[in-house]
Amino acid sequence: MKVNKTLRLDSADNVAVALTDLQPGELVSPPKAPTQGAHPEAESAASAIMLEIREQIPMMHKVAVTAISQGDTITKFGQVIGVAAVDILPGSHVHYHNCVLEGLPANFGSSTDAVMAKVPTTPANQRFFRGFRRANGRVGTRNFIGILTSVNCSATVAKQIAAAFSHPAVLQDYPNVDGVIALTHESGCGMRAAGEGFDALTRTLEGYVTHPNFGGVLMVGLGCETMQVQGFLSRAGLQDSATFSSFNIQEVGGTRAAIEKGVERVKTLLTAVNAQSRQQCPLAELTLAVQCGGSDGFSGITANPALGVAADLLVQHGGNVIYSETPEIFGAEHLLKARAVNADVAAKLSERIDWWQAYTRANGFELNNNPSPGNKAGGLSTILEKSLGAQAKGGTSPLTDVLLYAEQRKTRGLVFMDSPGYDPVSVTGQVASGANIIGFTTGRGSAFGFKPVPCFKLSSNTRVYDFMKDDIDINCGTIIDGEQTLTEVGAEIFEAIIAIASGEQTKSETLGYGDSEFCPWKIGAVV
Amino acid sequence: MKVNKTLRLDSADNVAVALTDLQPGELVSPPKAPTQGAHPEAESAASAIMLEIREQIPMMHKVAVTAISQGDTITKFGQVIGVAAVDILPGSHVHYHNCVLEGLPANFGSSTDAVMAKVPTTPANQRFFRGFRRANGRVGTRNFIGILTSVNCSATVAKQIAAAFSHPAVLQDYPNVDGVIALTHESGCGMRAAGEGFDALTRTLEGYVTHPNFGGVLMVGLGCETMQVQGFLSRAGLQDSATFSSFNIQEVGGTRAAIEKGVERVKTLLTAVNAQSRQQCPLAELTLAVQCGGSDGFSGITANPALGVAADLLVQHGGNVIYSETPEIFGAEHLLKARAVNADVAAKLSERIDWWQAYTRANGFELNNNPSPGNKAGGLSTILEKSLGAQAKGGTSPLTDVLLYAEQRKTRGLVFMDSPGYDPVSVTGQVASGANIIGFTTGRGSAFGFKPVPCFKLSSNTRVYDFMKDDIDINCGTIIDGEQTLTEVGAEIFEAIIAIASGEQTKSETLGYGDSEFCPWKIGAVV
Ligand SMILES: [Ca+2]
Ligand SMILES: [Ca+2]
Ligand SMILES: [Ca+2]
Ligand SMILES: [Ca+2]
Ligand SMILES: [Ca+2]
Repeated sequence: MKVNKTLRLDSADNVAVALTDLQPGELVSPPKAPTQGAHPEAESAASAIMLEIREQIPMMHKVAVTAISQGDTITKFGQVIGVAAVDILPGSHVHYHNCVLEGLPANFGSSTDAVMAKVPTTPANQRFFRGFRRANGRVGTRNFIGILTSVNCSATVAKQIAAAFSHPAVLQDYPNVDGVIALTHESGCGMRAAGEGFDALTRTLEGYVTHPNFGGVLMVGLGCETMQVQGFLSRAGLQDSATFSSFNIQEVGGTRAAIEKGVERVKTLLTAVNAQSRQQCPLAELTLAVQCGGSDGFSGITANPALGVAADLLVQHGGNVIYSETPEIFGAEHLLKARAVNADVAAKLSERIDWWQAYTRANGFELNNNPSPGNKAGGLSTILEKSLGAQAKGGTSPLTDVLLYAEQRKTRGLVFMDSPGYDPVSVTGQVASGANIIGFTTGRGSAFGFKPVPCFKLSSNTRVYDFMKDDIDINCGTIIDGEQTLTEVGAEIFEAIIAIASGEQTKSETLGYGDSEFCPWKIGAVV
Repeated sequence: MKVNKTLRLDSADNVAVALTDLQPGELVSPPKAPTQGAHPEAESAASAIMLEIREQIPMMHKVAVTAISQGDTITKFGQVIGVAAVDILPGSHVHYHNCVLEGLPANFGSSTDAVMAKVPTTPANQRFFRGFRRANGRVGTRNFIGILTSVNCSATVAKQIAAAFSHPAVLQDYPNVDGVIALTHESGCGMRAAGEGFDALTRTLEGYVTHPNFGGVLMVGLGCETMQVQGFLSRAGLQDSATFSSFNIQEVGGTRAAIEKGVERVKTLLTAVNAQSRQQCPLAELTLAVQCGGSDGFSGITANPALGVAADLLVQHGGNVIYSETPEIFGAEHLLKARAVNADVAAKLSERIDWWQAYTRANGFELNNNPSPGNKAGGLSTILEKSLGAQAKGGTSPLTDVLLYAEQRKTRGLVFMDSPGYDPVSVTGQVASGANIIGFTTGRGSAFGFKPVPCFKLSSNTRVYDFMKDDIDINCGTIIDGEQTLTEVGAEIFEAIIAIASGEQTKSETLGYGDSEFCPWKIGAVV
């Protein structure tokens, strides 16, 4: 069904991506650039020109669609990925032999003026979703009861409390309750009682205990752990209420007594949580976490930019986006910094990059700021190009803040939250920061879902979609298949976000994913 | 019921522990030393003398039971804990003001000759337990089917496969099968594909896949993770057999297909695993992991030494013991080194200590090699005394090897396996190393159990036993209550080990503990 042999990602691009191996002498028609409709005339003009391929170009590699003079910038995704080291004729292979970073203007990114011009105002055509508005004003997209733990030692009790409510019949009188779930973790003791690791776990637990997707929360501790429940609650300013309570196993007389007490507490919570129901809320109450797992060569040109289009639409409608995975922006962090709304935000990003450099060095290695041999074989010429493919999923909005892992989001629009790239650890932080919907791109078919927040999955190619249809919500491979444009898929994702936030079940929810994916980032030594 | 006011831990000791606050002028009768019956006449002589208390001595602190001259060694647990800084009269408070490390003979530990003399030969009165002897000759104490994972991404599938067998009715035709369990972990990707962290996870998974407490194993991967299932299997020399199989979710068509395939595989395994049954096996096939969690001031004088007595009995009967928790021996590692059977073993222990010093320094802190202010308030005068209380649980056998975390045990008798002190992480390594029974001491009432290996819990005091009776198997508080001697409790634990290894259920098994406690040590950065 592949009708196009090349894909131009933005109407401003002077290169296109080969969707198949191209041979010298072949005549190809560069496809209509699937941009957000910025330059419709340019698109039709470009699509009228037939392009003669001048040399062998492997699939996923770049071909020049216009003449590029030595010293000119080379543009993909509508953004600069390098400079022409020589004059490049249309139809030529563009790769690291002729696309380099040397000679790049020092300040080629957006200016602060340009960034500020893009800070969205609430649109005239306001959109809404149906969410659970909590007493504190925050809005949930689901209505779970959560059993959280301070330490691994209370995991078994937490799971057994939740298990008492796992049969659908038990909840049939509580139609507004999405379920009772235990989110347990492996840490909480055998750690220092201060410092980065302790603070990160504290922020994570606070983000979950107060998450709007929980109508009610029970927190179970052991009693002698490093992460003391009482200390945690007083630091977080939390106390027992109609929707929150806590206890320690050692204080109630052991396992059996703790399970009984927990089951009773949850029974009490059920009535309060069931009394909450969905109501109309503006998209400003949505916070989309974007995440990538198991990427392939197509991720950077289909699923990631399509999710980016949806992310931009959400921000334009007053909503919020959390972009993360610091190791993936390494070597091209200035692209993101150039979109910072002020120098403080840019400086915060620099601090995080410095932290990662020290952290990886202390752990005996360095993060790469060059494309790997595998990246090069896949057609990625510069670290800018690689990073832009990853960064595409966050969209192009101004960067309004940089957060520590699991730190509460405070600004509107697009924010960056520091985290590893590892999916469960990164998403755990994003949800703690306030994400109430998750968009997940994959080229390999990730097995991922997350409670209490719905997660929809986007495939970067049609093969993985067809093979794992039960797991993937939306196929972005249609962009390379020539069936849909990036703009169309982005709009489809945007509508899916509204539907899912309003209660439509994602594939991973149907499959029961989400209990095992809560993995707080453990920083520092286990002792 | 407290009939004794002081407790002398060994007949060779010149100090006793106050079991209550003692006042000047009080006359107390030092109890019969609950040693392993080494010096019965000395005991009766000592117990005949009434001791006059000379000054205020807080509970858990030490009182001199004989005159100790300046420069003489001070002995508790039958071992040197310090040197008298001044002449000390019977009935005096012995603490860091008069019990110091300065002046300690450099080589006060056992000589190699003394160590080798204790290397046990199989006793005449051979004892047996009833275990599952596997095709490769190893012996299990339980007969589980395990669903293991390479990465967090396959955790949900693994748990859903196991859940299909969670109802007792499903297994009623397979009476020899103890259950179908999913042991999942948070790692396997977002990590470097080489180095200490990768090697530790590899050793851990290998130790579980081949553990004799599993009659059959299914390993489920995702497909694109760092810890590739195929690579792991070829390094471990494993391949599909009647009792082992593996597959990747991405290769079978996604979550639903993977769960169906897994359930079918387990159904096949059930018949093979049910065909295995218990038979008589010598105690040489038992490997006891000793572990301490939530210790209190009594742990070092009741539960730990009582478990040590049982550990020594097991070694004397040809069995094996794995002692761990490296941070706890810090500052007194020479006590363990002095028991090494040769210089190589002692050198291996030094290497591990050096590693921890570098590891903690890289993580911004140092392990303490002095008793903490809390330790001192609790009556512990020197790091030797603190460490001896912790080391007591391993018994006094010669040290035949030092293992890396999760490294397979190769020698007989007592070995030390490097690990953090954090219970789930440490025990996961001990089980991977080959432990098929776990003895766990606690002063606070730990909520702990472990699958597929039975874990019995020992309380250090009667209060916690009475309050958490559902969780604690044996109360060692009877030693301070004067109801049992250390020797008697140690013998009781030894008999319990044989009964539990033969199938008797522990409290934690009855309560359903053990699925959430599998926590491989994560060394190095998450990326
Ligand atoms: Ca978890
Ligand atoms: Ca990721
Ligand atoms: Ca579609
Ligand atoms: Ca685990
Ligand atoms: Ca421990």
